[in-house]
Amino acid sequence: MGNEIGAPVEAEIERRIRESFDRQGLMAHLGAALHVIRRGVVSIRMPFRSELSQQHGYFHAGGASAIADSAGGYAGYTLFPQQSSVLTVEFKVNLLNPAKGDVLEAVGHVVKSGRTLTVCRLEVFAESAGSQMLVATGQQTLICMAGRPDVPA
Amino acid sequence: MGNEIGAPVEAEIERRIRESFDRQGLMAHLGAALHVIRRGVVSIRMPFRSELSQQHGYFHAGGASAIADSAGGYAGYTLFPQQSSVLTVEFKVNLLNPAKGDVLEAVGHVVKSGRTLTVCRLEVFAESAGSQMLVATGQQTLICMAGRPDVPA
Amino acid sequence: MGNEIGAPVEAEIERRIRESFDRQGLMAHLGAALHVIRRGVVSIRMPFRSELSQQHGYFHAGGASAIADSAGGYAGYTLFPQQSSVLTVEFKVNLLNPAKGDVLEAVGHVVKSGRTLTVCRLEVFAESAGSQMLVATGQQTLICMAGRPDVPA
Amino acid sequence: MGNEIGAPVEAEIERRIRESFDRQGLMAHLGAALHVIRRGVVSIRMPFRSELSQQHGYFHAGGASAIADSAGGYAGYTLFPQQSSVLTVEFKVNLLNPAKGDVLEAVGHVVKSGRTLTVCRLEVFAESAGSQMLVATGQQTLICMAGRPDVPA
Repeated sequence: MGNEIGAPVEAEIERRIRESFDRQGLMAHLGAALHVIRRGVVSIRMPFRSELSQQHGYFHAGGASAIADSAGGYAGYTLFPQQSSVLTVEFKVNLLNPAKGDVLEAVGHVVKSGRTLTVCRLEVFAESAGSQMLVATGQQTLICMAGRPDVPA
Repeated sequence: MGNEIGAPVEAEIERRIRESFDRQGLMAHLGAALHVIRRGVVSIRMPFRSELSQQHGYFHAGGASAIADSAGGYAGYTLFPQQSSVLTVEFKVNLLNPAKGDVLEAVGHVVKSGRTLTVCRLEVFAESAGSQMLVATGQQTLICMAGRPDVPA
Repeated sequence: MGNEIGAPVEAEIERRIRESFDRQGLMAHLGAALHVIRRGVVSIRMPFRSELSQQHGYFHAGGASAIADSAGGYAGYTLFPQQSSVLTVEFKVNLLNPAKGDVLEAVGHVVKSGRTLTVCRLEVFAESAGSQMLVATGQQTLICMAGRPDVPA
Repeated sequence: MGNEIGAPVEAEIERRIRESFDRQGLMAHLGAALHVIRRGVVSIRMPFRSELSQQHGYFHAGGASAIADSAGGYAGYTLFPQQSSVLTVEFKVNLLNPAKGDVLEAVGHVVKSGRTLTVCRLEVFAESAGSQMLVATGQQTLICMAGRPDVPA
């Protein structure tokens, strides 16, 4: 398997990410699901329902940010050593267009992977009748907690 | 009533904010409730439950960000003209400490209110056994959509 | 001429940008020069000298941010109407690698152009002996001041 | 001496910061000078001159950001162990008002100091005829490079 961003991940890495995702109660509560899992690239999809809306009836930026944050976190995690966990240091998102559509897909993409810190680009697309529109773009800093397995304390 | 940040708001403004908040399906879904509504300052509280967790069992940053975003948005909205609505342009949060506790409280605080753009400081506190800890701090830019009432299109 | 991002700009737009850039005393003081001017894409280059250094002898993040901010601002400005000026609302940069090299090049790239607000991606590359390295990546929000020509008040 | 934010610093810490600042060629080039040095709080002042201007004749956001970045960096550095250096991971600034006046003063203020990462609030004030106006507000993440003295490699 290649080492470049976007290459397939080992089964063990995919397993660790799926298990970690399944422990994120919020993702299930939002109806979000892992979609793409590749080296340095993870996406999460979340179908619309009224429980995810803001005051005008579109997706709330908070839900979009939640899946963007998780997508970026797991994108970074695909490149971390085995006994480690990932925490978000900070993130920033710009909301570009009303997030209306049938499904949101958040994509996290590693821009720079370091021993301690990793930086991701975040993008959120809204899908409507098969067409995609970029509705949010962001940037995120992650920290690798080496030697601290990704399980509840 | 005073015009300074933190002064009481008129009943009409409080009514508009409560109605708008009640239209945010996501806030109900997260179990979040409006707490403080003052001129340029709004806070939202969200009790812990496992549906809000990340992989280590604490509050997920996405939920914390969602209530911070809404708190800042409504803090700005208290200062907007009557026929207008508020949209988040962008926000950035730093996650300072694990968000563990019984309740999260997000506080939005207007730093600069302009005709078109408003900037807020965002703070999220975790409460545990009566003590509060700052777990996230952020900054947010809002835009006032003048002449566009805050109702679904 | 095409309308897509990266297409050539009209001579009049290039002239307005060069004149505006020449009024930015800071750019001359930093030894920075306009390089690429295309629709929605502007780059600025700044050769190293010790007056631009931070404490370890590399380019100071402040200088890198200054040319990134201007590059993004003018990238947005290529798409603005004739009687208008551009102001930066906010920007965020992540410093990915030590900014060491012979020259820094900052590239601003429009991600979303709106009537009032425009969002750019910012990238800063350090060049050393012909090879380029990404040393900073950022995101910027601009506002179009319609009807306010880009000249001193 | 107290340990709280804002308490006086030991002479040794002040000496290290002044030496480090003096190695920042950019600060001298911008005409910037250290002003306040306290535990977790550092400010830098920069008088206006046309070499610092943007296209409308005010302070360029790049210069304001440069001194804000350094002020925050040294604010964090006051709390770091002796054999260490400080690097900026990322920062974000909102430009609130035109930066016009006789002097800019940037204040960095530690919000959370950790073993690896430190978060600062950044504020930039413009002074005109004795009155101060907040012209920019920001947030910054620093990393402590333990065991790596703050000198050129």
